[in-house]
Amino acid sequence: METSIPQRLSDLRRMMKQAGVDACIVPASDPHLSEYIASHWKNREWISGFTGSAGTVVVTESKAGLWTDSRYFLQAGGELFGSGIKLFKAGLPKTPSINEWLISELKPGSRIGFDDNLFALAETEKMIETFGKKKIRVDGTFNPFPEIWNDRPGLPDNRLIVYPEKYAGKSVDEKISEIKHGLTKVDANCILLTALDEIAWAFNIRGSDVRANPVVFAFGFISDNEIRLFVSSGKLTDESRSYLSSQQIQVSGYDDIKNYLSRLDENSRILIDKNKVNAALFNCISKQCGVIFEPSPVALLKSVKNPVEIDGFRNAMIKDGVALVRFFRRLENDLGKEPITEMDIADRLIDARKQQELYVGESFATIAGFGEHGAIVHYSANEETNLEIKPDGFLLIDSGAQYFDGTTDITRTVALSELSPQQKKDFTLVMKGHIAIATCRFPQGTRGSQIDVLARKALWDNGLNYTHGTGHGVGHFLNVHEGPQNIRMEENPTQLCPGMVISNEPGIYRTGEYGIRCENLILVIEKEETDFGRFYAFETLTLFPFDQKAIDKACLTSDEITWINQYHQMVYTRLSPYLSEEEKNWLKEKTSAI
Amino acid sequence: METSIPQRLSDLRRMMKQAGVDACIVPASDPHLSEYIASHWKNREWISGFTGSAGTVVVTESKAGLWTDSRYFLQAGGELFGSGIKLFKAGLPKTPSINEWLISELKPGSRIGFDDNLFALAETEKMIETFGKKKIRVDGTFNPFPEIWNDRPGLPDNRLIVYPEKYAGKSVDEKISEIKHGLTKVDANCILLTALDEIAWAFNIRGSDVRANPVVFAFGFISDNEIRLFVSSGKLTDESRSYLSSQQIQVSGYDDIKNYLSRLDENSRILIDKNKVNAALFNCISKQCGVIFEPSPVALLKSVKNPVEIDGFRNAMIKDGVALVRFFRRLENDLGKEPITEMDIADRLIDARKQQELYVGESFATIAGFGEHGAIVHYSANEETNLEIKPDGFLLIDSGAQYFDGTTDITRTVALSELSPQQKKDFTLVMKGHIAIATCRFPQGTRGSQIDVLARKALWDNGLNYTHGTGHGVGHFLNVHEGPQNIRMEENPTQLCPGMVISNEPGIYRTGEYGIRCENLILVIEKEETDFGRFYAFETLTLFPFDQKAIDKACLTSDEITWINQYHQMVYTRLSPYLSEEEKNWLKEKTSAI
Repeated sequence: METSIPQRLSDLRRMMKQAGVDACIVPASDPHLSEYIASHWKNREWISGFTGSAGTVVVTESKAGLWTDSRYFLQAGGELFGSGIKLFKAGLPKTPSINEWLISELKPGSRIGFDDNLFALAETEKMIETFGKKKIRVDGTFNPFPEIWNDRPGLPDNRLIVYPEKYAGKSVDEKISEIKHGLTKVDANCILLTALDEIAWAFNIRGSDVRANPVVFAFGFISDNEIRLFVSSGKLTDESRSYLSSQQIQVSGYDDIKNYLSRLDENSRILIDKNKVNAALFNCISKQCGVIFEPSPVALLKSVKNPVEIDGFRNAMIKDGVALVRFFRRLENDLGKEPITEMDIADRLIDARKQQELYVGESFATIAGFGEHGAIVHYSANEETNLEIKPDGFLLIDSGAQYFDGTTDITRTVALSELSPQQKKDFTLVMKGHIAIATCRFPQGTRGSQIDVLARKALWDNGLNYTHGTGHGVGHFLNVHEGPQNIRMEENPTQLCPGMVISNEPGIYRTGEYGIRCENLILVIEKEETDFGRFYAFETLTLFPFDQKAIDKACLTSDEITWINQYHQMVYTRLSPYLSEEEKNWLKEKTSAI
Repeated sequence: METSIPQRLSDLRRMMKQAGVDACIVPASDPHLSEYIASHWKNREWISGFTGSAGTVVVTESKAGLWTDSRYFLQAGGELFGSGIKLFKAGLPKTPSINEWLISELKPGSRIGFDDNLFALAETEKMIETFGKKKIRVDGTFNPFPEIWNDRPGLPDNRLIVYPEKYAGKSVDEKISEIKHGLTKVDANCILLTALDEIAWAFNIRGSDVRANPVVFAFGFISDNEIRLFVSSGKLTDESRSYLSSQQIQVSGYDDIKNYLSRLDENSRILIDKNKVNAALFNCISKQCGVIFEPSPVALLKSVKNPVEIDGFRNAMIKDGVALVRFFRRLENDLGKEPITEMDIADRLIDARKQQELYVGESFATIAGFGEHGAIVHYSANEETNLEIKPDGFLLIDSGAQYFDGTTDITRTVALSELSPQQKKDFTLVMKGHIAIATCRFPQGTRGSQIDVLARKALWDNGLNYTHGTGHGVGHFLNVHEGPQNIRMEENPTQLCPGMVISNEPGIYRTGEYGIRCENLILVIEKEETDFGRFYAFETLTLFPFDQKAIDKACLTSDEITWINQYHQMVYTRLSPYLSEEEKNWLKEKTSAI
C-alpha cells in the first residue's frame, strides 16, 4: 500500500529523532551525481510527491520545504498541495537559500543529516564550512530511506552494452592513453571515474540504466597498473565479459569500489574532481595516498568529438531530419481533422523516429508546448495540463533522439495560424540571435560565455531576454547535456575547441502568451589562420527548416536572409535523397527562398 | 656616484648570502600595491635599469631575470643590454612563469626572499603553497634596498589636498555610512584601507604623491568607533588638519599603522581584501580579532559616480574637447612647416590642456605613436625612439588629463596622408566595434566580459583581433585606471551599474606597419524597464570627432553611419560655444555628416 506524504515525513522525522538529527537534506541525486536519475534514487520524489527533475527537500522537526527553480514553480505548487511541504522559489530575490534557511531555523549545536553518497565533495566541504561557522554540525551518514521506503525500486539492472569502435571512433587503448596523459600533466597517476557518461566514453560501453541517457551504473578506475570497472555482475554477459577482458579492463562488483579505494597504495596520487566525486567515496580513499584535486580530464576529451563520431552525428541528423519531415507533414495534415494533444506530439515523434536505422530512444522527454505552455521553459505535458493543439498561435516542440551513431536535440516553433506582428517580430529576433551564433567566428581560446551575447543582442536591443543558457554540450550517443563546454551568460573557463558539439537555442518567453525557441546543434570547426592567430567557426549539424510563416523578413539583414536561404537549401539537398516525391515537394516548399 | 647594474646585483647577492636567501624577487610595487609607483619604491628599476611600469626581477646566486609583458619586450631588451639580466618574455607559450623558473632553479630546502610589504596577501599565500609543495621556503622579511641603495629617494612628501564636497558630490559622512553598510553585509565591523584611490575617495582628499594619480600616501581605518587616517604629519597643513578634524577623522603617523593593527581588540571583525592588502600589514593584525576576507566595498562604491561627479566628468569633457580642437588644429597647420616629433605631441597636448580651468596635469603619460610605433600598444616615446611625424599613414594619440572636476582619457588615430584600402578597412572595423559598444543595451546584472565581443565581432569576422581589454574603469579626479568594473575578454564578476565610467577602446595593431585605436569614455545609464527587467545602456562622454578621412563608409551599416553623424553633431553642439569662429569652422568641417 502506498503511504501518504505526511506519513512518510513522519517516518523520516522518527528516524531523525533516533539519529539525533535536527534537519535532513534530501537532494535529487545519485552516487554518480547524474542529471537524470534512476527510480531507485528518487528519495526526493518519494518523500515529497514532487516529480520535477530539479529540487531539494529539507525537513526539520516541525517544518519541511522544497527548493526548486522557476521551471517548476507551477508544477511544484500543485504537487506539494496538502503535503505540508512549503515551496521555496529558488532564484527569487526574497527566497532564502537552503543554507540560509537552515541557519535561521537551527540553533548552534544542532546537527544536519544527509547521505553523503548523494553530494559532491565540493558541496559537503562548503556545507561543513558554512554551518561550522554557526556551530552547526554536519552528518553525512544519515540515510533513512532503505528503512522507511518499503517498496523502493531496486538498482537498475540493465545489461551493459559493448559500443563498437566503428561508432566510437577511438579504441579504449587510445582513450586510456589520452587520459593518462591528462593525469601526468597535473602530476596524478590514477583517477576515480564516477560520472556515468565519462565511464561509458572511456570504456566504450553503453547501457540503459537511466531514461534517455545510454549509460550503465558503474565506477571506473584507471592507473598505470590497471584499468578497472566496478559493475554488478548481473549486467554482464559472456560477450561483454569477453570484450572487457580483451581491453584489459578488470572487473569488480559495483559495491567493491569503497573497499578498493580504502586499499590504494601509498604511491597513488589520485585525481579527484571535487564536483563529480561524491563525498562518501572520497572519504573511503586511503589516507596514505596523495590526492590531486583537478577537473576530470575525461570530460574535455569526451567533448571533443573524433571524425567517426562527427560522421555519426551527421548521419543521425539526416535520419532525424527525415523523421521530422514525416512528423511535421503528418501533423500539418491531421491538425483540425482529429484531436491532437501535446502528449500525442511526443508519441508521434517516437513513431516517426523509430522508423530510422539505429534508433534507440528519446534523448530527453519531449517538450511540446502549445500557446502559453510554450512559455514554460521546461514544460512537460501530463494528464492534467495536456492541451489540445488548436489552429492558433505557436506550437513549440523541443525533442531529440538517441541513435546508436549519434544524439540529436532540436527545437522548432511553428505557426499554427496567421501571427500577430509582435509574434512575428519576436520569432525573427530569436532567429537573428540564432543566426549570429551560427555564423560567428572567434579566435582560439574563446569561451562560450564570451559569445553568448551574440544570441541575445537583437533581443536586448528590444528590451527582451531569456534566462536560460544559449547552448549546452551534447554527447555522442551519450547524455544530451554534457560539459564542460557551453554557451551561457555565466562564466565557464572551458574554451571552445574544434570537435565540440553544442546546441544553439535562443528563445523568448511571454508568460501566459507563448514561447519561441529555435534550436540546432552546431559543431566547432577550424576556420582560418591569420597573423592574429587561429580562428574557429561553427558548422550547423541539424537539418530541418525553420517556419517561414513566422519570419518578418523586413527585420532581417541581407546576410541573415542569405543564411536562412542557404541553410534551407542545404537541408533540402541533404534530406531529399531519402524522401518520397510527396515528402520532397513538401520540403521544397518549406525550404523555398524567402 | 651612480653604481652600475652589475655592481648593484653584486651588492644584492652579498646581502642575500648574509641572510641565507637563495633567490630574491623584486617587484614593481609599493606597500599600497599601486599601478604607478613613486620613485622611492622603484627597487625593480634601480636593480635592473629597466624603466617600464610592469615587470619583476628575480635574482639567484648566479642568474638574474626580468619578466615583463609584450608591451615592453623591445624596451626591456634595450635597457637590459649588458646588465647580466636575462629578459623573460611573459605570456609567450615557451616562457616559464617566475614560479616555474624558480622551482627549476632551486633545490628543496632553498629559501626565497622578498619584501612582503610589496606583495598582496593573496600573492604570498599562493607562493607559500606553490613553493611549499617543492619544500622551498619563503621569507617575506628580506628587504636589502635601504642598505644597498644609497641615493634612494625619500618617501613622497607632497601636501594632502582637501577635496571639496562641491566636486566630490558626497560628504565623508555619507561615504563612511555606505562603507559601514557594506561591512555589515559581510559581517565585518571594521576595514583596513590600503589602496590610495580608495582612501582618497573615502576621505575626500587628494594629493600628488604619484605621477598622474592625484593620491596621497596614507592608510585608512574605519570602524564603528572611529575613522583614522595614517599619514605623515609633514603632508598636513593647518587647513587640512582642521578639515580632517571637522570630519571626525583621527590622524596618526603613516608608520603607526602596523602598531595600530597589532592592538585591535578582540571584538574586531576586520574586512581584508586579499588582493589589496599587503602581506606584511596583514601579518601585523592582532591574532585576537576576527578577519573577514572579502573584496573591499569601497571599490564598488567609488566606481558608481554620483550626479555631481558625472557633471564634473561632463565639464571636463568639454574642456578636453576644446583643448583637443586647438591641439589638432595647430598640429594640422604646423605639420610639414616645422619638424614635430612624437615627444612634441605630449608637450603640445599639455600646452593646450593647461589653458583649461581646473587643469591639474596628465592622467597618464601620453602615447603618441607614428606609423609602426602605433602598433606598440603602450608605446611611450623616448629620446632614442622618438620619430618625426611625416605626412604618411596613421598617427595614434592616446592621452588624458586630470581636471579638478574630472578625469579624461581619449585615443584618436588620424590619417596623415591618403590611406590604403586596408588601412581604411581596418579603421572602419575598429569603429564598428566602438559603435557596437557605444550603442549596446543590456539587462541589469550584465558583466563587462559578456559584452566585450561586441567590440571585436567585426574584427573577428575578418580574422583580426586585439589582445588588450576593451575598456577600463576611470576614476573621478582619481586614477585613470580603476576597478572593479571593466570590459575585457577575461571574466570579471563585477556587474555594470548605472554611474560607472568606462573606456571604450577597441583597436587593431599590425606589427611593423601601424596601429589604430578609437577611444571614448562612456557612462552606464538606465535605459528602460520592461517585462523582462531593467535594461541599461551607455552614454558617450568624450567629445571629439573621429577622423572621417579614415572611414570607409561602404563598410558601415546605415545605423552605424547615423551614430557617427549624431555623435559628431553632439560634439559640435557641445564644444562650439567655447570656440573662436576659426575653430568653429574647423570643427564644423570635421563633424560634417558622412
